[in-house]
Amino acid sequence: MPTDTPPEAIDGILRQSWQAFLEYRKFSLQQRAQFMRTIATRLTEAAPDLLKMSMEETHLPEARLRSELTRTVFQLNSYADFCEKGSWLDARIDTADTSRNPSRPDLRKTLTPLGPVIIFGASNFPFAYSTAGGDTACAFAAGCPVIVKAHPAHAQTSELVAACILAAAKACKMPEGIFAHVQGASFETGKALVTHPLTKAVGFTGSFNGGKALFDWANQRPEPIPVFAEMGSVNPVFLFPEKLSTAAHDIASMYADSITQSVGQFCTNPGLIIGIEGKDLQQFIQALGENIRKIPPGTMLHPGIAKAYQEKRAAALIQEGVSKIAESDTAAGNNQGVPTIASVTGAHFFGNPLLHQEVFGPYSLVVRCRDIREMTEVALHLEGQLTTSLIATEQDILQHTPLVEAIKNIGGRFIMNGVPTGVTVALSMQHGGPFPATTDPRFTSVGADGIKRFARPIVYQNWPDALLPEELKNANPLGIWRTVNNELTKDGL
Amino acid sequence: MPTDTPPEAIDGILRQSWQAFLEYRKFSLQQRAQFMRTIATRLTEAAPDLLKMSMEETHLPEARLRSELTRTVFQLNSYADFCEKGSWLDARIDTADTSRNPSRPDLRKTLTPLGPVIIFGASNFPFAYSTAGGDTACAFAAGCPVIVKAHPAHAQTSELVAACILAAAKACKMPEGIFAHVQGASFETGKALVTHPLTKAVGFTGSFNGGKALFDWANQRPEPIPVFAEMGSVNPVFLFPEKLSTAAHDIASMYADSITQSVGQFCTNPGLIIGIEGKDLQQFIQALGENIRKIPPGTMLHPGIAKAYQEKRAAALIQEGVSKIAESDTAAGNNQGVPTIASVTGAHFFGNPLLHQEVFGPYSLVVRCRDIREMTEVALHLEGQLTTSLIATEQDILQHTPLVEAIKNIGGRFIMNGVPTGVTVALSMQHGGPFPATTDPRFTSVGADGIKRFARPIVYQNWPDALLPEELKNANPLGIWRTVNNELTKDGL
Repeated sequence: MPTDTPPEAIDGILRQSWQAFLEYRKFSLQQRAQFMRTIATRLTEAAPDLLKMSMEETHLPEARLRSELTRTVFQLNSYADFCEKGSWLDARIDTADTSRNPSRPDLRKTLTPLGPVIIFGASNFPFAYSTAGGDTACAFAAGCPVIVKAHPAHAQTSELVAACILAAAKACKMPEGIFAHVQGASFETGKALVTHPLTKAVGFTGSFNGGKALFDWANQRPEPIPVFAEMGSVNPVFLFPEKLSTAAHDIASMYADSITQSVGQFCTNPGLIIGIEGKDLQQFIQALGENIRKIPPGTMLHPGIAKAYQEKRAAALIQEGVSKIAESDTAAGNNQGVPTIASVTGAHFFGNPLLHQEVFGPYSLVVRCRDIREMTEVALHLEGQLTTSLIATEQDILQHTPLVEAIKNIGGRFIMNGVPTGVTVALSMQHGGPFPATTDPRFTSVGADGIKRFARPIVYQNWPDALLPEELKNANPLGIWRTVNNELTKDGL
Repeated sequence: MPTDTPPEAIDGILRQSWQAFLEYRKFSLQQRAQFMRTIATRLTEAAPDLLKMSMEETHLPEARLRSELTRTVFQLNSYADFCEKGSWLDARIDTADTSRNPSRPDLRKTLTPLGPVIIFGASNFPFAYSTAGGDTACAFAAGCPVIVKAHPAHAQTSELVAACILAAAKACKMPEGIFAHVQGASFETGKALVTHPLTKAVGFTGSFNGGKALFDWANQRPEPIPVFAEMGSVNPVFLFPEKLSTAAHDIASMYADSITQSVGQFCTNPGLIIGIEGKDLQQFIQALGENIRKIPPGTMLHPGIAKAYQEKRAAALIQEGVSKIAESDTAAGNNQGVPTIASVTGAHFFGNPLLHQEVFGPYSLVVRCRDIREMTEVALHLEGQLTTSLIATEQDILQHTPLVEAIKNIGGRFIMNGVPTGVTVALSMQHGGPFPATTDPRFTSVGADGIKRFARPIVYQNWPDALLPEELKNANPLGIWRTVNNELTKDGL
């Protein structure tokens, strides 16, 4: 294991990060994009070493890690493209108007980076949501330096990725301190980073306990700072009656795959499936069970996660009214997670908050409701979620408005006849939802819109053209979309 | 005084607000805009009564209140226009692409309202930042019902305004509960509103202590919710050397007006003026003093504010190194605020945090720095601000980069050779800044962009066209700007 960063080093790291911030925020969008693309290139070059080390540390299969690395490179490149296009700055210009009463000055608004950002990566994504992952890419695009707290589950992979970032920084002549890498498994290291006065924002992907602790520390600072913590979700799936009656087998097969993909270690893993008691649901449950039995257990990311899965699964299965439907026919080896499906009535589910909680791993609970009203009650009582899935015909949606409306309250992404796993990196993605899925549902951690977490609007009032930043100059030298006197345009003034 | 709302009524109010939310969020942008415009019309019709009552309650002069009411009507109408145009929904569409690996589903993102919003109005703006003020207009535009906690300083004006909103709601067939009005001066009423589980966001304009209390309550809830609290600012003004040498008299006269406008009761009142010791600054101070002596005291909003001003002014004036430059030659009557200018050296200013705090009223402190480096140090040590003003030539800005960069860290709006008072309502406005100016510098409470405080993104994945909200349908029936496969367009698919 790499050596822990000594606590007394944190202050120096933040001071250097702050100095880098003052320089880096003056860099052009092209320079930021170039830096991000260079990181992507270095990661690609280092792929053999990165894959080898990450396989050792995470026990994830090579194909999965390879595709995650490809995704990470795609994120860096596509956010770089978005950054460079500049429309995300939401530049707004209202020209002076002395005919109005009171007269209007010349006002020009753009975004400015918040300052040094601390990123806490995820145990389950050593590349895409860790050291050079989505949060880091968003912060660099916004104009912020980044300090990554390496995840102890893949600390050495994190070192290798950090080396790629530092090499890219050097090649692109970035200011010293644009990126720093901190090792340390203790809560104290995280707390010291989040509570340092020069820290201006935090990005986190992980457990509820971890994210909530960071959120509380950040809000209790003399100067509170924004925290975007993505803390997981049970991702409820609603089986509407008409659709279920026509496709129980296909849905069961699709969901068996989704539940067990990567040994269920996705924040979008479908942990809860809600349907109406009857022969269609019985058919679905039976088919799901048959599928699950055939899927062998897989080695989980690290022994701690495997142990937590075993414990939480065991605790869930002994709750009143819960019956196991099926588990994998294959015996589990060391640190492996056993694919498992259980079921419970709506009434029991209501009475037991433990059943609403995520069991991180290849586990899903089918809730058997008495009728559509009880199903709606379940939706009304669920906490905030990253995703909800609707297995439904058009007729189902039109007929069951109260249920659909209840589902709309709780999620960030509404999936029609699909599975929640597989989060596309695209501008239209929303990976965020009402608490406790995330700490602020107004932002996303997947897709280039995630940049907005790390920037704030500023206005220049009556500044001479020569002194304005490029994106606000009369001639529109960047050629970006701007809202001028309430109309979107690429024209200059 | 109107009767206090009994604490046991709060739960019923929130429940009704939640029911209204479920209906109101389905209303079209046109219907929301129509509702907002109808409120504007009702306020205009009720103007004589509103002005009479508000003059009694706030002691503000009729001309000021009349222009504030005009501003309030303008806000409602212009935010309604913006709401109706729909581009603020930031609709994004990525069409399905099976040629990619992994293949991309059809993803369509829009904004959805957060839910019931609690608004706490400002003592100093009975119309524009109170019951039917900017926050209320933004929440209605976003699709949220509003519950206003009336400010005790103008509780009866608030009743009259609430009646206008309710009449408009009835005329526009809005759901019962779209708006509620709560009276009560106690902290407990505010706390009950903010901590109710059905409350989903808070808007506040007022003191640091008030705003920070709401922020803390909101973050300590089992489900934390966003609070946008605008908590005031000292709005530092930086006198750059070249500009000061050419225009000391003009600047002094402009600032004497700004400091004393509305008896200094603006959150953008310039409370701190920073310059470099020397004959130019002496000339400025002398001219400012001469101007201030001629400006008579004015009656403040209410006795509590007048008393607080007297006490804070007195406390500021007896600090070590602080000397009074001038005060109004006219003796103050009951509850009047005396225009006052004091001065202090940079060294004394540094050593005394009390001098960094706002003295709400017609008071400003001139900080005399040894040199440009000390002036930069002052900028580096100031807290977050709504505005900063730069009194400077282009040469000044180009020559003193460290000072300009330091100023950029702390403010939301940077004013060149003007005064911070007079906040234009425009899309390009930013009325928000780093803490403690506001609780989240990524949002604004003036300008239609303030709507974004009260909405969150949601994504529809693979939904049939017929079931999508209007703004996401293939044909683009609303004719709004959308980002389709990464390009802004008004075209349909």
